[in-house]
Amino acid sequence: MNGPSLALRQRSLGDPVIEFPLFPPLTRGCPETSTGEIAYPLDVTYDYARVDTRLFEQEPGADIARWSPLLPPLEAPTLGEGGTPLVEFDGVHIKDESRNPTWSHKDRLNRVAVSAAVAAGAPGVVVASSGNHGASAAAYAARAGLPAIVLTSADSPPAAQSFVRAYGATVMSVPVEKRWPLLREVVDRLGYHPVSNQTVTHTGHPFGPEGYKTIAYELFLQLGRVPAAVFTPTGYAELLYGVWKGFVELRLLGLAASVPRMFSCETAAGGPHARALATGAPAAIVELGASDAYGIAGPVGGHRGVVAVRDSGGEALLVSDDELRLAQRDLARQGLWQELSGAAGLAGYRRLGQDFDGPVVCVATSSGFKDVGVGAERFPVVAEPTLGDLAPDA
Amino acid sequence: MNGPSLALRQRSLGDPVIEFPLFPPLTRGCPETSTGEIAYPLDVTYDYARVDTRLFEQEPGADIARWSPLLPPLEAPTLGEGGTPLVEFDGVHIKDESRNPTWSHKDRLNRVAVSAAVAAGAPGVVVASSGNHGASAAAYAARAGLPAIVLTSADSPPAAQSFVRAYGATVMSVPVEKRWPLLREVVDRLGYHPVSNQTVTHTGHPFGPEGYKTIAYELFLQLGRVPAAVFTPTGYAELLYGVWKGFVELRLLGLAASVPRMFSCETAAGGPHARALATGAPAAIVELGASDAYGIAGPVGGHRGVVAVRDSGGEALLVSDDELRLAQRDLARQGLWQELSGAAGLAGYRRLGQDFDGPVVCVATSSGFKDVGVGAERFPVVAEPTLGDLAPDA
Repeated sequence: MNGPSLALRQRSLGDPVIEFPLFPPLTRGCPETSTGEIAYPLDVTYDYARVDTRLFEQEPGADIARWSPLLPPLEAPTLGEGGTPLVEFDGVHIKDESRNPTWSHKDRLNRVAVSAAVAAGAPGVVVASSGNHGASAAAYAARAGLPAIVLTSADSPPAAQSFVRAYGATVMSVPVEKRWPLLREVVDRLGYHPVSNQTVTHTGHPFGPEGYKTIAYELFLQLGRVPAAVFTPTGYAELLYGVWKGFVELRLLGLAASVPRMFSCETAAGGPHARALATGAPAAIVELGASDAYGIAGPVGGHRGVVAVRDSGGEALLVSDDELRLAQRDLARQGLWQELSGAAGLAGYRRLGQDFDGPVVCVATSSGFKDVGVGAERFPVVAEPTLGDLAPDA
Repeated sequence: MNGPSLALRQRSLGDPVIEFPLFPPLTRGCPETSTGEIAYPLDVTYDYARVDTRLFEQEPGADIARWSPLLPPLEAPTLGEGGTPLVEFDGVHIKDESRNPTWSHKDRLNRVAVSAAVAAGAPGVVVASSGNHGASAAAYAARAGLPAIVLTSADSPPAAQSFVRAYGATVMSVPVEKRWPLLREVVDRLGYHPVSNQTVTHTGHPFGPEGYKTIAYELFLQLGRVPAAVFTPTGYAELLYGVWKGFVELRLLGLAASVPRMFSCETAAGGPHARALATGAPAAIVELGASDAYGIAGPVGGHRGVVAVRDSGGEALLVSDDELRLAQRDLARQGLWQELSGAAGLAGYRRLGQDFDGPVVCVATSSGFKDVGVGAERFPVVAEPTLGDLAPDA
């Protein structure tokens, strides 16, 4: 049932009649449709006619290899990614992705992307990231026995810096503007496989969103149906696109009748996907203001998010840091401590303020441990504590 | 199948013919057998004859309510605890408990202990803890709508201090020697339910190890058999005892023929369970030296660990901080970043250096984010990075 990969080819999102072989992964976007202003990503096609739909009779659980026919070849070993729980809160379902091996959704992507590195015979993996993505790539590379280079920036939080360095990768903090040329040099001269973006608008790894598809499969089984709406924290929109694609496949396989409306939840400090959708552009780059939601705050968007929002009848939402903090606080007061960026799904749902005819899912992407300010505060010791200090009304 | 709780009574570990009603939980140990030097814990008995063993035909997964007949009543809502993956490494199976809702094994205990607070009608929950236990209790109390008081100490790591404060509890850092009297006052005067120990040797919450039993159930299903040996990080030995008890129950229910040998893995800076076992005492208190494994380093042991090690033919092992660091590093280089204390199971297995006739499990308890030193290091930015800095041999 969960046999070999049925992945067929890479297909251009710039023009879906343009296809390429599955390998090598085109990590610099579609070479035929991309221009100097807009880069188009690649997508992965499958031999859907050969999928045994009993695949969707299994229980959701750890290790995305349970979906292997619908993923590119998984040549890198698992760390038990996926199989994350749904926790109900205030009428919505929180998909808690902090329950992955490195405590963020990124593990689903990196199982697939590091597998591509192994399958391509690359001598190592390189990534530019100041947080979750870099640590996750380092963890999967370590597990696969591949060296990893992580180019990080000085502005990532101290605890996240410890995190990214934990897995034995070569980690270097470099000035932001030096990251991309250096990444390219590592790819070109060392032959390392890149799991970060290298194009003018975001294309990233062509296999990346395939890992996120598994969230859709799990939601379908956990809810026993397709949700009415899904809200995701959105940086480059690989997560948004991946979840959307998973539901599209369920419809294609005849298992579901509809696809949820997909809501992109970006920080109001930037919002390239909101801009692209508002202007009708295939992708956009915006000025980036200040935000503590460093996990999703970026000036560069991609075409994938535009496709997912538009095709599903969703919307691109912008949330302020204050709205994020409120959502983060309320989740923590239900026992779910999320990174500020990770609370963007709930913040977006609240900002929209709309009722849906069916279940609503907010994806919560990452543990609160990764946040700006974690470990920065010092708390005084109360030398002579009394009951009155603890319960003033007692 | 996973119907109501079949829990019957509390039974003294000081003398198993002495029983008490299930409620109220005796949070100050057995009142009949405890002395001024040794406090005996309570255990929970069940109507095993009424257990439908098809319970063990289900898949392991999140939410320990799937084992409800074999747990005390679960009155507090779930955060999706349990269902953690096994990751193979170097011939052993790592049970990755960092994949719980607050990223440690403690969530299994707190689901059960906070449920007891709800069932007992307590107006709140109180805990003395400098890390995982306090944060987990705060998370489950928050989820259940109960106020929580956490008495923490100044020496807990900065990131762990942010963690413990995230869930909206009243958190106060107090001098270590003031914690226990203040805890008692909160219990006696506010009626809060204690989920921390209050006795001379450790007894803790009588229902606590019941949550940890579910690890044994999961291991049995994940491995398709009983492992030959289980190594657990050991502080108060509630985890060790709980896992052991789960396997004892599987034997009692006719599902398994044997119980694994249980290995207590304590820091060599203390080691009260190793001392008790060496001297034949029911429990011991030792001098505590310096250790960074603050999650398990304590001077006070309890009777439960002695029972589990002795009855299973196991051993009490002592591991140095250097051995812990090596195990922690090697786990991280397989993609599993554990707290120093969390690596004690693997460190103990290596110290023993013995082959077993069957699978070996090392329980890894907690995320590396909680460690001493996380966020404390600063890394310089390389202003003019070159490929040679990243790959000197290239």
